[in-house]
Amino acid sequence: MNDATLCLLPVGTNIQHDGDFKKAFSLQSFVDAARIVSDKLHDFLQGDRIQGVSLEPPLALLSAARALMADPESAGFDAKRFSDILDLYLRTTIKVHSRGYMARQFSSVVPVSAVFDMITAMAPQPASYYEAGQLANVADRVMAEEFGRLIGWKDGSFAMVSTSGASLATMTAVLAARNRLLDGSWEDGVGVEGRGRGRPAIAVGEDAHFSANRVAGILGIGQKQIIRLPLNARRQIDPEGARAALDAAAARGLDVFCVIGTAGSTSVGATDPLAALAELAHGRDAWFHVDAAHNGAFLVSDRLRARVAGLAQADSFCLDAHKTLFVPSLCSLLFYRDASVADIAFPQRASYVFDPDDDEMSRFQSGTKNFECTKRPAILNLWLVWALFGRRMFEQKLDYLMDLTCVAHDLIAEQPDFDVVNQPESNILCFVHKPAWVPVDRLSLLQLELRDRIRAEGRYFLSKVDLDGSTVLRMVLMNQRITRTDIVELLKLIRRHADDIRDGRPVVRVSHAENAPPSEDDTIKAIMGKSGHAAFRSENHSLGSPSKRA
Amino acid sequence: MNDATLCLLPVGTNIQHDGDFKKAFSLQSFVDAARIVSDKLHDFLQGDRIQGVSLEPPLALLSAARALMADPESAGFDAKRFSDILDLYLRTTIKVHSRGYMARQFSSVVPVSAVFDMITAMAPQPASYYEAGQLANVADRVMAEEFGRLIGWKDGSFAMVSTSGASLATMTAVLAARNRLLDGSWEDGVGVEGRGRGRPAIAVGEDAHFSANRVAGILGIGQKQIIRLPLNARRQIDPEGARAALDAAAARGLDVFCVIGTAGSTSVGATDPLAALAELAHGRDAWFHVDAAHNGAFLVSDRLRARVAGLAQADSFCLDAHKTLFVPSLCSLLFYRDASVADIAFPQRASYVFDPDDDEMSRFQSGTKNFECTKRPAILNLWLVWALFGRRMFEQKLDYLMDLTCVAHDLIAEQPDFDVVNQPESNILCFVHKPAWVPVDRLSLLQLELRDRIRAEGRYFLSKVDLDGSTVLRMVLMNQRITRTDIVELLKLIRRHADDIRDGRPVVRVSHAENAPPSEDDTIKAIMGKSGHAAFRSENHSLGSPSKRA
Repeated sequence: MNDATLCLLPVGTNIQHDGDFKKAFSLQSFVDAARIVSDKLHDFLQGDRIQGVSLEPPLALLSAARALMADPESAGFDAKRFSDILDLYLRTTIKVHSRGYMARQFSSVVPVSAVFDMITAMAPQPASYYEAGQLANVADRVMAEEFGRLIGWKDGSFAMVSTSGASLATMTAVLAARNRLLDGSWEDGVGVEGRGRGRPAIAVGEDAHFSANRVAGILGIGQKQIIRLPLNARRQIDPEGARAALDAAAARGLDVFCVIGTAGSTSVGATDPLAALAELAHGRDAWFHVDAAHNGAFLVSDRLRARVAGLAQADSFCLDAHKTLFVPSLCSLLFYRDASVADIAFPQRASYVFDPDDDEMSRFQSGTKNFECTKRPAILNLWLVWALFGRRMFEQKLDYLMDLTCVAHDLIAEQPDFDVVNQPESNILCFVHKPAWVPVDRLSLLQLELRDRIRAEGRYFLSKVDLDGSTVLRMVLMNQRITRTDIVELLKLIRRHADDIRDGRPVVRVSHAENAPPSEDDTIKAIMGKSGHAAFRSENHSLGSPSKRA
Repeated sequence: MNDATLCLLPVGTNIQHDGDFKKAFSLQSFVDAARIVSDKLHDFLQGDRIQGVSLEPPLALLSAARALMADPESAGFDAKRFSDILDLYLRTTIKVHSRGYMARQFSSVVPVSAVFDMITAMAPQPASYYEAGQLANVADRVMAEEFGRLIGWKDGSFAMVSTSGASLATMTAVLAARNRLLDGSWEDGVGVEGRGRGRPAIAVGEDAHFSANRVAGILGIGQKQIIRLPLNARRQIDPEGARAALDAAAARGLDVFCVIGTAGSTSVGATDPLAALAELAHGRDAWFHVDAAHNGAFLVSDRLRARVAGLAQADSFCLDAHKTLFVPSLCSLLFYRDASVADIAFPQRASYVFDPDDDEMSRFQSGTKNFECTKRPAILNLWLVWALFGRRMFEQKLDYLMDLTCVAHDLIAEQPDFDVVNQPESNILCFVHKPAWVPVDRLSLLQLELRDRIRAEGRYFLSKVDLDGSTVLRMVLMNQRITRTDIVELLKLIRRHADDIRDGRPVVRVSHAENAPPSEDDTIKAIMGKSGHAAFRSENHSLGSPSKRA
């Protein structure tokens, strides 16, 4: 028997708490909410409106959000309030299901996988431990086997770990490389001496994702020990340039223990020459990791697979199923060619989660291999879609998107007032609008203003990227509803916005939502006042029409 | 104009792809799936059966999962197959909504927040950038202000970053500490010289979560540079012992730049003396971070807040809303007392995501402050529940769970054949069953076998934890439906299982699901054959009844 000095009740009290709070957890509240959300999503998804994003000023949105919060005295499930919150959410969301969405790498998802998220939220299988996520850990195994066959790896020889995002997957892989090659770095820390060949360093392509660059800072290697590998004209790492860069690094006393390649760069979707880089890395006893977040999905396509064949030579690579396999975020797969290295990233144990007695179960669980303790069982969204629709569904959509991007490329390349920037290796295409009236040194400014105006108008949504100091427009085709006609319409729209800029006309915003903010002009002013470019408006930097400039 | 050598189509082709795959993305497939899932969850949640977890052998489950995968030739949405997959998922899921679930820290969630996950999956707001996650970034601000008031911090003086799990939050905070205090560690790497006061080191309590220990390995500090701070009898860090440990570390040439405390230890729910540790850390120019994953939620309760008052003195702390604020995983909040340090963990920029022109929007977005590039907008689940039900709902449920844990404590402490291990500081209670026939040196083995048998029977679900070399049973009360009666029933059940062990009787598994695996005995055999404890069965280690041992 013990004292219970910290307990708030007298010892022996039998509590009978009938608080209002139990209503929040009631079955009825689930039923009501599920009906409202299903109806709301149905209305949101139906039809075929061209929509991009309705960008609203943060402070106005903050007020709107605050206004929707219940008075503490009257709090409780209120269908009207819930519906209003959903409206505000949907209004401020990028319309990824629309043909107007061409801006980013996150995808319109397979609906059945989105619905499944309601199950994994309500009846969780936190997936790091077999006991807590039985089917999730089994699905890891199934998907590993499916992908192993596509990569060409032998069952049992490799390992796959599902994790939350390519940033985390890449950090995990480089950590495995560091722990493997820099002896004692987990126990002793990262020293300047490394493995006795010089100061530890990491090599990445000039176009690598910022998360790959962050890794050197996080893992104690240091940003200054990042060797940047030069690119060729297609913005792929150039193997000869890479060799020279590694030689130069060695001459400076740096020991590159990990080379990171990319399959599907964020900027243009380029895939580095993976096999050549693998050979280069391995010739120097370095680990070769590939950030295949975007193009790793090519593995599922008989037509596209050859483009990423070099993944088979990598020591590790990751892909984002929430990008190009069309399931909800975050669902990333990290592959190790050698199964035995999969648990060296986190060489540790804790008694309450790792049970030494459950051998068969332990072999299935991912907890010693991934960073997360509680892990969303996102792998199940992928397995579910794979189980229902098969590999062919992913393949067909990817093939379609790649074909479509080529069509867009050809169409834009034909236009005298446009330049394409990249030959599409993926579903990403960069291009520049160059009407005759714009001086070459203002082209970047024009593309930025075009991006802003197109976005502000609300029908189409493009992104922009800065390449070698120039800003270019960027199109990512993630939606199977988009056709050549949409690209034709987009080009017309771009020309019209350029004319508006030339002639000093403001953007007219298209309103989509019934609950669009009342003061449309103010919204535009707020957006344009902050993100508009004074250079287009001031006298001495005007881009205006030739007559105006004269 | 450019060549399109990589494109698969002849230049100028206009594709018309009517592949089957488009059906997978149809509105109808959403409507069908949403109806099936809603009905299935309704059936799953209704009623009040006592259920724990139905643990199945991985290889059997692998076969079951494989059998549910469509023949590639006949793939497509099949309501029967989908329904069977959902059944398999729900069968193998821990029944967190049941009164039998007392094992883990993840929670039965507020249903409306689970339903909302369907929205954020189908119409995503990936939340690191304002453009992509407008309401998500605004909700960050709203929740920061709500919590700031509860902590007692002044608006504008502090920062909150939402992220995916306390492991990631703690890594981020310690990285901020490292970058702040070990000058140049982001750029130059972590050196042994540190800030000129000795080799960089981190101090954590003996009972710290394994993720806090991992951090030293990940960030390049090294596991050997972890100073373990001793605990008092309540398993809280002892400030005087901590002072001595830090002195000893300094004498060994170690410079502790970060002290990590815990509010709500995984083992027993203990909260370290936060204010004293903050003073100790600050007196040595060290950063004080608190892993308040579990007990940080006490901030919402007028009765419980004082227990974590010291969080106000921390440089950073994190809490898991997916634990004790009852929303879906992963929803973690990382707080910095000083707003100006919130972006030093990841001092970096990338042009395609960070737009220097969008000043007001940039101030709202979290991308420079969190690890993730694509981030699930989980903060919205918390905001949604807060907006609908108010702070009081969280407070009432937490108060109830704490009261209930005290009731359980008192009840168990009264039993002559049980010992309670901890005075509950949270909703976690550890205890030991000690029937007279068990020798003291076999008590640990008995608790482990009891955990296994109770779990295998399938009605209740407890966990176990190893404390100072002894295995004890662990109860985490996350469900508001649990009452004193359930604890009484559990104690009866434990005694019955102990009797079964003494008398050599096998476990009789309770079947809950209509689709339970056919060969129940085999399942038990498989589980028990692997995880059962030979010590209970072999002659020379038998724990059996006194007569048997005689």
